[in-house]
Amino acid sequence: MRQRDARTHLELLDRDECLILLNGRHVGRLAVVHGGAPMIYPVNFSVAGDQITFRSDPGTKIEAALRSPVCFEVDHLDEASRCGWSVVVTGRLETAPDAPPVDSWAGDLQRAFRLVPDRITGRSVGPST
Amino acid sequence: MRQRDARTHLELLDRDECLILLNGRHVGRLAVVHGGAPMIYPVNFSVAGDQITFRSDPGTKIEAALRSPVCFEVDHLDEASRCGWSVVVTGRLETAPDAPPVDSWAGDLQRAFRLVPDRITGRSVGPST
Repeated sequence: MRQRDARTHLELLDRDECLILLNGRHVGRLAVVHGGAPMIYPVNFSVAGDQITFRSDPGTKIEAALRSPVCFEVDHLDEASRCGWSVVVTGRLETAPDAPPVDSWAGDLQRAFRLVPDRITGRSVGPST
Repeated sequence: MRQRDARTHLELLDRDECLILLNGRHVGRLAVVHGGAPMIYPVNFSVAGDQITFRSDPGTKIEAALRSPVCFEVDHLDEASRCGWSVVVTGRLETAPDAPPVDSWAGDLQRAFRLVPDRITGRSVGPST
């Protein structure tokens, strides 16, 4: 039987389950802090091992978040059936000049970044996983 | 012809379009800052006018973010067709004891919060909007 979050009663996913779910998606949401305020950016990403890579352009707030704590979230939440899952990765961003290309919906972005995770957690709602 | 984001070339949505899109969804992602680090929480929400209400429980990081800058994102991103949209609302959280109920997937949450927006922006990718 799976563990449940004591507060929300949602099922907790283990790290391996989280990595499998991350590998099956191509769009997530990156949150960075700028001037004390959080900002969320939808981003294309790819996963190699437990490291997540993105691309962005010079001068963006994502680039300004280098070496700072960030949070990355990927989910599949079906509003009709009210079930799905969410995986959250926290860690720090670093440049990744050797990263493989990321297939981006927003054109050719110049800079590659890697999220080095310190924590990967996931929760599921309903019977979908 | 719609405006395009100079950096990403994504189409910009105006505030009214953003509010219509927000009204059509029930799950979004709230980012708060705690100890200098961002954290993303999937949340059920409802919209009245331009104000967005959520529910949470006492003692959570969401409650700790009261009167602090937060960011809320809602999207519909279709990985197969590579099109969709994302709306981002930034502002501050305040308690909302008079808020209407929010239909929550995570059970009966005690505290209601309102996001008082200072900025509502949206972008679309592809022909879906």
